Amino acid sequence: MSGPVSPAELEARLREIGAQRYHNLHPFHRMLHSGECSKGQVQAWALNRYYYQSMIPVKDAALIARCEDPGLRRIWRKRLEDHDGSRPGEGGIARWLALTDGIGLDREMVVSGRALLPATRFAVQAYIHFVRERSLLEAIASSLTEMFSPQIISERLSGMLAHYDYVTPETMAYFAARPPQAERDANFALDYVKREARTAEQQQAALAALSFKCDVLWTMLDALYFAYVSPGFVPPGAFRPADG
Amino acid sequence: MSGPVSPAELEARLREIGAQRYHNLHPFHRMLHSGECSKGQVQAWALNRYYYQSMIPVKDAALIARCEDPGLRRIWRKRLEDHDGSRPGEGGIARWLALTDGIGLDREMVVSGRALLPATRFAVQAYIHFVRERSLLEAIASSLTEMFSPQIISERLSGMLAHYDYVTPETMAYFAARPPQAERDANFALDYVKREARTAEQQQAALAALSFKCDVLWTMLDALYFAYVSPGFVPPGAFRPADG
Repeated sequence: MSGPVSPAELEARLREIGAQRYHNLHPFHRMLHSGECSKGQVQAWALNRYYYQSMIPVKDAALIARCEDPGLRRIWRKRLEDHDGSRPGEGGIARWLALTDGIGLDREMVVSGRALLPATRFAVQAYIHFVRERSLLEAIASSLTEMFSPQIISERLSGMLAHYDYVTPETMAYFAARPPQAERDANFALDYVKREARTAEQQQAALAALSFKCDVLWTMLDALYFAYVSPGFVPPGAFRPADG
Repeated sequence: MSGPVSPAELEARLREIGAQRYHNLHPFHRMLHSGECSKGQVQAWALNRYYYQSMIPVKDAALIARCEDPGLRRIWRKRLEDHDGSRPGEGGIARWLALTDGIGLDREMVVSGRALLPATRFAVQAYIHFVRERSLLEAIASSLTEMFSPQIISERLSGMLAHYDYVTPETMAYFAARPPQAERDANFALDYVKREARTAEQQQAALAALSFKCDVLWTMLDALYFAYVSPGFVPPGAFRPADG
């Protein structure tokens, strides 16, 4: 490997990882937004994805706990505010529960996490451990999947509203609110990575961190596909759809 | 050991730890608020105490990173807001820098931490590791020194204003703003510990956590006393007062 590339070239390589590995390319995502999922499959997706969402503030607090710069902590704190809100019933997690409620999942079952696919839990915990244990640069770079999320969110929002009669604008409130937050967060994190990844080794680490994070999201959809689409092996103790 | 005690008895035992081990009993605190410190000793105290203050949001984010309950995260997030503020120049850390500026310390030296007593750094890091690694109950119980802080803060504020002509209300703004925040935080944490420490083992762990935290604060004043009062052995690389 030779020397470092320019910040613009680093950005291009980060975007190329997204173009090749982001979970909008996964067959389960295509089924979900094109209306091919049964209600049970939509429920299984929401149940497992809720766990990921509910752990995002834990991941973000772990990142803040590694920042000795108050300015960086303040900016990253906004993510806690977006997800947890300022009072019960507010914020991204509450909006996610509106979705799981709206598609007929029992809230206690959702919040308890007891019917999750184990692979979901392992993938999400791997993400939290990555953020706790790798360099701050890698932790921040691992958030860069947000660069690609506005597109997947808009596909999900329009596709699910169009194809599933039990999905309403109210249940999809999370996805309506999310894109401007994701764009702001992604711009900040991308600027940080382009500025701070100065050596070839740091740039490689940042690229690998984004790739790792794509693996986390992809693995979650793989697990859903195997358990609820094909071959349809639901692991012991995991959610079993009423229509499955 | 027999069974658990009542919540009221647990509170009494927590308060007894404060009465016996809180750092308001330390000779350095008495010197500081009674006007017996030289300016160099006041500077050494502020420099080392600043490091503790600057790491409090790191400690609190580490605690939030362990909470799976959004309600608990929201409440604890207030501590990040109090210390980091919402923009540069706001919050408790900025108010602490007004103090170190006001008593003539170089801000770059303060923020860099390069002239700290090593014992200060070790004690503060021990606190952060405790919060990361022990149970959530112990992490929260270790914050309960706040129960005793309004008194020490009022002694410090009035004593330092009365005795040191280079200490002004502006430089002491942190201590004026802090007591209501500390009282709110301490009440929440005390209620939590009284409610969640149900077994005798949990109650012992909570008492030991508070005792540990008292040791952290006491050790910081011990290190100041040894280095800057008696015998006055300043470790290599640590701050040397101009008047010492």
